[in-house]
Amino acid sequence: LRKGFPEVVYGPGKTPRQVAEIMRRLRERGGPVLVTRVHAEQAESVQRLLPEAAYHPVARALTLPAERDEAGERAPGPAIRVVTAGTADIPVAEEACLTLELMGRPHERVYDVGAAGLHRVLHHLPSLREAPVVVAVAGMDGVLPGVLAGLLARPVVGVPTSTGYGTGQGGVAALLTMLNSCAPGLAVVNIDNGFGAAVLAGMIASVGSPAPP
Amino acid sequence: LRKGFPEVVYGPGKTPRQVAEIMRRLRERGGPVLVTRVHAEQAESVQRLLPEAAYHPVARALTLPAERDEAGERAPGPAIRVVTAGTADIPVAEEACLTLELMGRPHERVYDVGAAGLHRVLHHLPSLREAPVVVAVAGMDGVLPGVLAGLLARPVVGVPTSTGYGTGQGGVAALLTMLNSCAPGLAVVNIDNGFGAAVLAGMIASVGSPAPP
Amino acid sequence: LRKGFPEVVYGPGKTPRQVAEIMRRLRERGGPVLVTRVHAEQAESVQRLLPEAAYHPVARALTLPAERDEAGERAPGPAIRVVTAGTADIPVAEEACLTLELMGRPHERVYDVGAAGLHRVLHHLPSLREAPVVVAVAGMDGVLPGVLAGLLARPVVGVPTSTGYGTGQGGVAALLTMLNSCAPGLAVVNIDNGFGAAVLAGMIASVGSPAPP
Amino acid sequence: LRKGFPEVVYGPGKTPRQVAEIMRRLRERGGPVLVTRVHAEQAESVQRLLPEAAYHPVARALTLPAERDEAGERAPGPAIRVVTAGTADIPVAEEACLTLELMGRPHERVYDVGAAGLHRVLHHLPSLREAPVVVAVAGMDGVLPGVLAGLLARPVVGVPTSTGYGTGQGGVAALLTMLNSCAPGLAVVNIDNGFGAAVLAGMIASVGSPAPP
Amino acid sequence: LRKGFPEVVYGPGKTPRQVAEIMRRLRERGGPVLVTRVHAEQAESVQRLLPEAAYHPVARALTLPAERDEAGERAPGPAIRVVTAGTADIPVAEEACLTLELMGRPHERVYDVGAAGLHRVLHHLPSLREAPVVVAVAGMDGVLPGVLAGLLARPVVGVPTSTGYGTGQGGVAALLTMLNSCAPGLAVVNIDNGFGAAVLAGMIASVGSPAPP
Amino acid sequence: LRKGFPEVVYGPGKTPRQVAEIMRRLRERGGPVLVTRVHAEQAESVQRLLPEAAYHPVARALTLPAERDEAGERAPGPAIRVVTAGTADIPVAEEACLTLELMGRPHERVYDVGAAGLHRVLHHLPSLREAPVVVAVAGMDGVLPGVLAGLLARPVVGVPTSTGYGTGQGGVAALLTMLNSCAPGLAVVNIDNGFGAAVLAGMIASVGSPAPP
Amino acid sequence: LRKGFPEVVYGPGKTPRQVAEIMRRLRERGGPVLVTRVHAEQAESVQRLLPEAAYHPVARALTLPAERDEAGERAPGPAIRVVTAGTADIPVAEEACLTLELMGRPHERVYDVGAAGLHRVLHHLPSLREAPVVVAVAGMDGVLPGVLAGLLARPVVGVPTSTGYGTGQGGVAALLTMLNSCAPGLAVVNIDNGFGAAVLAGMIASVGSPAPP
Amino acid sequence: LRKGFPEVVYGPGKTPRQVAEIMRRLRERGGPVLVTRVHAEQAESVQRLLPEAAYHPVARALTLPAERDEAGERAPGPAIRVVTAGTADIPVAEEACLTLELMGRPHERVYDVGAAGLHRVLHHLPSLREAPVVVAVAGMDGVLPGVLAGLLARPVVGVPTSTGYGTGQGGVAALLTMLNSCAPGLAVVNIDNGFGAAVLAGMIASVGSPAPP
Ligand SMILES: Nc1ncnc2c1ncn2[C@@H]1O[C@H](COP(=O)(O)O)[C@@H](O)[C@H]1O
Ligand SMILES: Nc1ncnc2c1ncn2[C@@H]1O[C@H](COP(=O)(O)O)[C@@H](O)[C@H]1O
Ligand SMILES: Nc1ncnc2c1ncn2[C@@H]1O[C@H](COP(=O)(O)O)[C@@H](O)[C@H]1O
Ligand SMILES: Nc1ncnc2c1ncn2[C@@H]1O[C@H](COP(=O)(O)O)[C@@H](O)[C@H]1O
Ligand SMILES: [Mg+2]
Ligand SMILES: [Mg+2]
Ligand SMILES: [Mg+2]
Ligand SMILES: [Mg+2]
Ligand SMILES: [Mg+2]
Ligand SMILES: [Mg+2]
Ligand SMILES: [Mg+2]
Ligand SMILES: [Mg+2]
Repeated sequence: LRKGFPEVVYGPGKTPRQVAEIMRRLRERGGPVLVTRVHAEQAESVQRLLPEAAYHPVARALTLPAERDEAGERAPGPAIRVVTAGTADIPVAEEACLTLELMGRPHERVYDVGAAGLHRVLHHLPSLREAPVVVAVAGMDGVLPGVLAGLLARPVVGVPTSTGYGTGQGGVAALLTMLNSCAPGLAVVNIDNGFGAAVLAGMIASVGSPAPP
Repeated sequence: LRKGFPEVVYGPGKTPRQVAEIMRRLRERGGPVLVTRVHAEQAESVQRLLPEAAYHPVARALTLPAERDEAGERAPGPAIRVVTAGTADIPVAEEACLTLELMGRPHERVYDVGAAGLHRVLHHLPSLREAPVVVAVAGMDGVLPGVLAGLLARPVVGVPTSTGYGTGQGGVAALLTMLNSCAPGLAVVNIDNGFGAAVLAGMIASVGSPAPP
Repeated sequence: LRKGFPEVVYGPGKTPRQVAEIMRRLRERGGPVLVTRVHAEQAESVQRLLPEAAYHPVARALTLPAERDEAGERAPGPAIRVVTAGTADIPVAEEACLTLELMGRPHERVYDVGAAGLHRVLHHLPSLREAPVVVAVAGMDGVLPGVLAGLLARPVVGVPTSTGYGTGQGGVAALLTMLNSCAPGLAVVNIDNGFGAAVLAGMIASVGSPAPP
Repeated sequence: LRKGFPEVVYGPGKTPRQVAEIMRRLRERGGPVLVTRVHAEQAESVQRLLPEAAYHPVARALTLPAERDEAGERAPGPAIRVVTAGTADIPVAEEACLTLELMGRPHERVYDVGAAGLHRVLHHLPSLREAPVVVAVAGMDGVLPGVLAGLLARPVVGVPTSTGYGTGQGGVAALLTMLNSCAPGLAVVNIDNGFGAAVLAGMIASVGSPAPP
Repeated sequence: LRKGFPEVVYGPGKTPRQVAEIMRRLRERGGPVLVTRVHAEQAESVQRLLPEAAYHPVARALTLPAERDEAGERAPGPAIRVVTAGTADIPVAEEACLTLELMGRPHERVYDVGAAGLHRVLHHLPSLREAPVVVAVAGMDGVLPGVLAGLLARPVVGVPTSTGYGTGQGGVAALLTMLNSCAPGLAVVNIDNGFGAAVLAGMIASVGSPAPP
Repeated sequence: LRKGFPEVVYGPGKTPRQVAEIMRRLRERGGPVLVTRVHAEQAESVQRLLPEAAYHPVARALTLPAERDEAGERAPGPAIRVVTAGTADIPVAEEACLTLELMGRPHERVYDVGAAGLHRVLHHLPSLREAPVVVAVAGMDGVLPGVLAGLLARPVVGVPTSTGYGTGQGGVAALLTMLNSCAPGLAVVNIDNGFGAAVLAGMIASVGSPAPP
Repeated sequence: LRKGFPEVVYGPGKTPRQVAEIMRRLRERGGPVLVTRVHAEQAESVQRLLPEAAYHPVARALTLPAERDEAGERAPGPAIRVVTAGTADIPVAEEACLTLELMGRPHERVYDVGAAGLHRVLHHLPSLREAPVVVAVAGMDGVLPGVLAGLLARPVVGVPTSTGYGTGQGGVAALLTMLNSCAPGLAVVNIDNGFGAAVLAGMIASVGSPAPP
Repeated sequence: LRKGFPEVVYGPGKTPRQVAEIMRRLRERGGPVLVTRVHAEQAESVQRLLPEAAYHPVARALTLPAERDEAGERAPGPAIRVVTAGTADIPVAEEACLTLELMGRPHERVYDVGAAGLHRVLHHLPSLREAPVVVAVAGMDGVLPGVLAGLLARPVVGVPTSTGYGTGQGGVAALLTMLNSCAPGLAVVNIDNGFGAAVLAGMIASVGSPAPP
């Protein structure tokens, strides 16, 4: 599937029956299918109707593989890095990784590089510099993506998360930090939108390749 | 300068003397210098102190060229497209174009493709499909960037503008529209941030090339 | 009942006993009765007290038919179209359809015309052009109603829904998109207000007919 | 022009030269041209470039008449009523009236029906009941449109205005009052959007007539 | 207790043990004790520790009577009226009535005078005109208190409630309507603050009497 | 005029001609006329058209006396106190005092009792205790009205002002402090609404007297 | 540990397994470990994996003691005071006390000094004056920290809490009160951030001592 | 004056006459007087009435020296550092420095340590480590204070500034970044509040010294 991205369905507000039906219909188009924001019970009900659906509990997503398995066919080039500030940001990062996986995009996890300190960031810098683009996931004050954008010459996709409390306001504080960063090369997506960040990063990584038809 | 981006200074809240001094200091690093958000009178005062500074009234910016003029040296590859929804969005788009110019990045203007209708967008689609990345500038409801992202396979950088009134809230409505778009491949930057959008687009367009040192 | 709209009760914050009592009292006025935002358990408790009440689980509403059944008597003229962007917007659309049903207004469902693309919209255009007025229901970025208003010469009633996450803020982003649309002829109602949209659309469709007494 | 609405341009953020040029270009399509939100000095500069443009100081708008003058040709039927709560809401109401004028729609002004009392509203009720649709313009607490919708059987288009102070927040309080009104048949548009309200009202009034081609 | 108001405790965030202990301590001062915002289970646990505490399920409050029962001793003068717009506002109104009861203040309930129409308000006007002060409780658009203030010559205490959805924002829309009302003589308190409204109304009603020591 | 309050006009958004005309019309009803929020130049233009209008520069208001001068006739009873936290709150307090003056209500100024300390408040306490009701005007953190309500047994009318900066948000912080105060007996009005506070206070002070006809 | 502060982990969004693992890893650095915002069930699951973890139910925190117990070694000097306005603020204050305990900082609780009155504050003033710094915890209107800052010559760390309802907005009203206080010497931290307040207070109290290495 | 802080007056909303009078009155208490937020013309008018007042144009403040000049008497100990992220933050930092000057507190300026990069911060680290407390002033994304708090063992006072645009919202984004920072030891004050930050920092620096009487 190197050239596109998966068919995607937004899980909340849909009955298991609706989800299963949509997954079946979309599978017919040939590519993989991804359903985001599915909690465990909802997933189980869908799997009873559609046993071939796989559930990814940390990413909170259901998937169907592509018709013709192209898992072996990977896009060439260095791996996109998916970075998190803290442990609580991992579910959003896993949604991104799962999406990159379905897109056939090589990617590497760099988790927990530190919310309140910069040492771990500096430690990973040489590896991060190899990436064509970095997905940086952070809640609370959302400082990490801007710091990375200041240190790297490649684009950074910042994903604010709803991790935090009080004035964090469900991710709004982190979002504002990223939008107001002076660091050049920082793209921002919606709060908790791991899927969207991955699609964007995958597209960026393939800008040098011929466009999909 | 093909590989980097200009030294940039944020104009508001600085005296003409401060601006002139900073421009002089930054020029010594060799690359071009860009000062954003400078209104006409402020520009004139700076030019009295630094006559070689050029003022770009629509983009509301001051520039100093690079030491060794590399204007002839353009990055290879197809042109980035800079699109606006309406006429009132042009100043922000011009800030982006000026930045791309200083980065040596080929770019083309596609202005006024229409706020309240989609026909003009469709008309320009074949040309937009050639771009490695599109910068889409829109105020009011900010719908254009998401529409473009839905039609294109390449990344779109959405720039909300403060054009509008009432519940537009100085660009917040347009920003929210972009952040909540379901269209894949949409990167968002701060309201009116033409400079930031251009740097991001320039970086994306050169993802296939070797990284700057 | 062609000339008016149903007696309506807002369900939340009322005990089953209060709901049943109010339904009984309102029925005496002769017209149909509608209770909105009733979840399944609350409905069951009401039905135990008032077995003739019908529950509509997708629309989340309870109804009592009009005293003298006028279901056969339909308002003349072409059908109002009720459109949704995604599957998650269907409950709000069903609340609108149920209201139109009780008003005796012919109406047709056009669901899932697409959140992240415009092709399905274009496909349905000829049918939508026949409607005297269109009810357009959309969450997330809320772009659909403005797109329809740009394509149609008849009024569009936009209903933002609370579908979405992060900066969607429970429908506020979708609402702002609609209020800031430049497309002519777009009326906006409160978030998730399927009932209000239907009454407004029904009134609009009958503007050419003599006013109710 | 009975069948459509004027070509419209949003004035702010455009130079007089841009405005004059756009007006000239749009006139070629045959219909009337309307430029909204133009203050007196901006208007004068445009008139120097385009002397046939007429300025309407209370409505703060510039107009060019239709090519073939159809002023005599009015749409049939009773007049739309344009109502204001206070004197400070008149400029927004006049933008609406001017738009209705250019649409060839009969309309009547009912101004100052009272912000802090209901007697004047009741006094005008018989006349308001004749209208196919009422445009109700109100700032501060924005209560008037909901009160009218509660008293009338025809649609009401509520226009919140930025009149007010403190927690009025430039019209947001009035907007929220209208969106949260329980009165059936209330359509809401953006704050101060007299133009949009008029186009919507004109479309509603002609729902019974054949659609424009 | 005619001269004062009850000792009051805010229930949420306190353990049953803390509530019981505070109630016991406050009772020693002689006057009645009121605990607000107590849900049924919390109340039961408190009553197990303090069986003489009475629970008022609609008002969601616990009370202890005054040491020396002064229930028979009522303040002289006409009754304060406690008015609600809808049925869902009754719990807040009941918190107000219970407080007035403990203050020994004569009061009368006028509930459900109508959210979307004014006829029932007009029906009750003669009775409301007898009150020294009116407590008006309303959610959604919160229009009722301003309408009453426009019709009455005595002070009105407006209590916004969290009844509503979407842009109602948990009572903020209703609050803003009241604060921006032009009607003279409207006092506003916090959202859902039936207790505070009652104390204020009781103080206002006794302004002509000698101050408490 | 002891029994009522002045006819009042909100100045902003009205032309001098409109203001003068409205003042003339209202005078015919016999009572005094008050126009609020009038800046110096606007006032001068009005006075050229209506020389008998008096301008009060600190209160920023225009007045016409009552037809039959009743200035000598004062309501009986102790004076209402009008208190400010700081010097910048005085214009709002003066609007209140002017309104009380026109209502024939005895009142006393207690200004600058201190924003950042409580000593001056305590110093004035004996005098404040004599008032039937206190109007407390405060910006920034808006703490003063709640402190007074905690110290006094009579109602306090809190007026938040737009004095402040940063997170003061034009008076919203002060307003929220007052609405969330636990002190019993605090009535809140809109930001900077000195007029509304005075009418409310005047009504409260006359609750013991017979109602106006 | 006198010179530093504990390793701290934010509990929400982590599985018990992740929490236990992180606690184990951090313990290896030698100092104490603190996990905040852990509810009872989550704590139990962690304790099953890591039985030496202690749970503090009021502070809602898990702790591991320092490797080498330094509980006996206390920092010298007078005790920091931790003050609350109401009973509902105690959990946040206890999080602060537990943190100070782990830092080896002498501290004293002064709880419930009164939300709606100042007498209890004045009663405790002599003791509060001995503290090098005071931590003041308050919800609702958040007035207490500013009052203390006005009475004390030492720094006050204000902690807004989410106690309250309606316009309290989960602590935002209290936060704004503190940020807009005119009282000198008031430091503000995030809503409910007892841990952060304690670390700041501990650092302030040791400013006179040599810095940690 | 080593032990206290200056008498301070908030300039906006006061007439020059009021300012001069207040300055005169406060001078009588012996200490220095500071008036903040005074623009150049206002300052000139005050100086005409009170020629001994000194104006500081960058800090936008007026001062009167202490009666008995104690400028030579400085508090002992290392200098507080006042740091800014950018050039536009300097006015706020200068307000802080002027306040520290009047408090007799040794302080050093470290300006422009960089908004979009961390190298200059690291360069200044050894000097910053000597300070008992650091005042960190930053607008836009407001990241600097948190970064410093992460690197330093002493308290940091973060001052958000209104520098920025779009979603910066006049400093709110910077404020939220600071409040949500995980870095230990960060105290936050109101947007642009250089004075308050300086008083707090001065108090912190003297925590080891005996309290002022
Ligand atoms: N996590 C997600 N974030 C943003 N968009 C999504 C997400 N998951 C699905 N979508 C998109 O949401 C849109 C609405 O989806 P649906 O309700 O599934 O028809 C689809 O166009 C999807 O592309
Ligand atoms: N229009 C702009 N939008 C966002 N950042 C900018 C803009 N112009 C300059 N900057 C950045 O703003 C930061 C603060 O700048 P300065 O006050 O110039 O030191 C610098 O790091 C610049 O990179
Ligand atoms: N007062 C107005 N309110 C809402 N939309 C408007 C108004 N005036 C013009 N427009 C629309 O604004 C859009 C942007 O205009 P322009 O910048 O002229 O291309 C056009 O599509 C107009 O239809
Ligand atoms: N429903 C309520 N609304 C506002 N204030 C209240 C309410 N119930 C109790 N209070 C006040 O809240 C304060 C905090 O109380 P507590 O936490 O009980 O010590 C007390 O001063 C009470 O006067
Ligand atoms: Mg970078
Ligand atoms: Mg695309
Ligand atoms: Mg249309
Ligand atoms: Mg109606
Ligand atoms: Mg009244
Ligand atoms: Mg009191
Ligand atoms: Mg102090
Ligand atoms: Mg630190």
